[in-house]
Amino acid sequence: MLSPRSEQPAGRPEIPRGPDRNHALASRWELRCDSRVTYQVRLCDGLLDPANTVLADTIADRRTLVVTTPTVARLHGEPLRRLVRQNDAVSLLVLEVTEASKTLAQVETVCRQALAHGLTRRGLLVSVGGGVCSDVVTLAASLVRRGIGYIRVPTTLTGQIDAGIGLKGGVNFAGKKSFLGCFHPPEQVLIDPAFLASLPRRFLVSGMAESIKLAVGRDARLFELLESHGPELVESAFTRRGPEGREILQRSIGSMLEELGQNPYEDRSYERLVDFGHTFSPAIESALGFEIHHGEAVAIDLALSATLSEALGHLSTDAHRRIIALLRCMGLPITAKPLGLELCSLALAEAARHRGGSVNLVVPTGIGRTLFLRRRAAVPDAALQQALDHLARLEEEAA
Amino acid sequence: MLSPRSEQPAGRPEIPRGPDRNHALASRWELRCDSRVTYQVRLCDGLLDPANTVLADTIADRRTLVVTTPTVARLHGEPLRRLVRQNDAVSLLVLEVTEASKTLAQVETVCRQALAHGLTRRGLLVSVGGGVCSDVVTLAASLVRRGIGYIRVPTTLTGQIDAGIGLKGGVNFAGKKSFLGCFHPPEQVLIDPAFLASLPRRFLVSGMAESIKLAVGRDARLFELLESHGPELVESAFTRRGPEGREILQRSIGSMLEELGQNPYEDRSYERLVDFGHTFSPAIESALGFEIHHGEAVAIDLALSATLSEALGHLSTDAHRRIIALLRCMGLPITAKPLGLELCSLALAEAARHRGGSVNLVVPTGIGRTLFLRRRAAVPDAALQQALDHLARLEEEAA
Repeated sequence: MLSPRSEQPAGRPEIPRGPDRNHALASRWELRCDSRVTYQVRLCDGLLDPANTVLADTIADRRTLVVTTPTVARLHGEPLRRLVRQNDAVSLLVLEVTEASKTLAQVETVCRQALAHGLTRRGLLVSVGGGVCSDVVTLAASLVRRGIGYIRVPTTLTGQIDAGIGLKGGVNFAGKKSFLGCFHPPEQVLIDPAFLASLPRRFLVSGMAESIKLAVGRDARLFELLESHGPELVESAFTRRGPEGREILQRSIGSMLEELGQNPYEDRSYERLVDFGHTFSPAIESALGFEIHHGEAVAIDLALSATLSEALGHLSTDAHRRIIALLRCMGLPITAKPLGLELCSLALAEAARHRGGSVNLVVPTGIGRTLFLRRRAAVPDAALQQALDHLARLEEEAA
Repeated sequence: MLSPRSEQPAGRPEIPRGPDRNHALASRWELRCDSRVTYQVRLCDGLLDPANTVLADTIADRRTLVVTTPTVARLHGEPLRRLVRQNDAVSLLVLEVTEASKTLAQVETVCRQALAHGLTRRGLLVSVGGGVCSDVVTLAASLVRRGIGYIRVPTTLTGQIDAGIGLKGGVNFAGKKSFLGCFHPPEQVLIDPAFLASLPRRFLVSGMAESIKLAVGRDARLFELLESHGPELVESAFTRRGPEGREILQRSIGSMLEELGQNPYEDRSYERLVDFGHTFSPAIESALGFEIHHGEAVAIDLALSATLSEALGHLSTDAHRRIIALLRCMGLPITAKPLGLELCSLALAEAARHRGGSVNLVVPTGIGRTLFLRRRAAVPDAALQQALDHLARLEEEAA
């Protein structure tokens, strides 16, 4: 069970610090899924360098199918093809993946290739790509011979600090987002920040929303680091990251894994801190189709949740100001056209449907602290409207 | 880890008794899959009687999709339709399933219906049918919203004492049998022997092969019961079953669950007693296509394994005679046309590919005892040929 965070040292009411555990500065984490399964997440610099053997050593002598995307193949194809040249047991599949084509048909393509390449129960899949690639490969790995091992090499910021280090896979089905899927823990997640250097700016900015979510939700030190170094990190695409940039990655990964580890199969509780920023955002994404990035919708949700919290008196004006300022200086939006009372109401009803009947809206009560608004009655329409108006005013002032 | 059975009380060398635990005579068993998941298997007489509320109580207020086959719908459709009439939250899908159509497309049909019927994460699937129906529903349940609950109501003998009480689902893919699948424990398995009354004789006989497998493999008392009451049970389609008929079901179910419970996800050991009769049989099934029933192929495998064991000096002539006699008096075959040295060699190679490199052929060393022949060298071609010749002679004598 998650409970509202309130690690608030006496005398520092405004910037309470989140837990500063050792693992936050680690380069290797372990996520214990259950009594049978644990997997490692590792920060590996230079994973695709010619002299680097981490990936080859991880594959070892197992029959392996590496799945990647056309973009990654174009930017980093040579090291992957070298892997295939050096080892007959390794094969490469370049899969055209987009959110719109994230379907069972894609999963079948991977499974067919796995069969053709002769993967046994000891076989291995490797996903080198973003969220869609990882989703498809995860589901394929869970199905082939009733579940084989796989490795995740996330190449986007969202992949490296959020969905890509988890254990879920899923595809869209009959018009319903992620209706089919699985929980299938990877054997390992290998994270090389060098992939971020070639990421378009908008993808980097989107990824930052998930880091901000964790910072506001549970780690005030991460929030400060993002305030002081976030924009430069995005500007340099993580190439000039220094110790603070690395700490931002480490804290984001460590925090995410700690949250995941409390409820890896999402069956222990409907109160999940990682749902922060993920209550209104699905409706925003639905309304705007693929025009908006997931992280942008999350940022708008974070802004609305913070503004609502302030309207309800749960969040100080100063903390609210800092949250909005951080989102903006990172280049993230704080509102969108379709966002109105009606959309918010629909989103809350949908959330309740998926959270065992409770709304469980996560709102910040400070930097690094949150509160679950469990019932719809705790989110009055009047306060929602007030928050929406406040956001519209802020947007107008900035224009 | 499973180890060869040798519960052999002193002074009874030829008919050592298997473990006679209380659960063998139970009407309710529990299979503990891991620290998170346990499920119940229950013998429920009269499940579809108008006054019986077990199924309705199990479904309770959850949105539920019941999946069944045309045959079951024809024979037992009224009680299922009554369930739908009495509860708006329940819907019925009749799915045309055959081994040849056991594909992802069938799984998608179930998933599409689950979406249309509005199943949330609390939703429920119910499979009322044989092995193919159960396979398809299990896989659908594992995929919908990353895994929802489901109930198994097996209607065939094989379903009630073998595959149907387990946690595996699977479909054929790109010509490969059960290439895609999952381990997804049901919430409950409800077993009503009344379904067997309408089962064609050949299906009953086939199911008996799995009971004989467990009897020879670990339960001498079950073997004796099958010798004395098996043929009559088949003759009466389990309608005249008396206490011995019930004990045969109970011992078969209890034994199977005990074996499953030692290695529910098949990741602890490649030495599984339930693989007894399942080393040569896949090759026989492949060679004969859908002309042969699974249980018939298993019977041939049991006969060959026993005859090989006798040829190698691991099994007494008398025990061998009893095993062959039991298979025959039940109406099961002991050999088939395509069965020759070549097919056996291929089957052993394929088995080793799926059992971590070891052949792990299970052969009986008495009634209720077995031995694992781990290496190919322990199964010399000469002994295999001798066993094949012996079986051919027995077949000729009987003709």
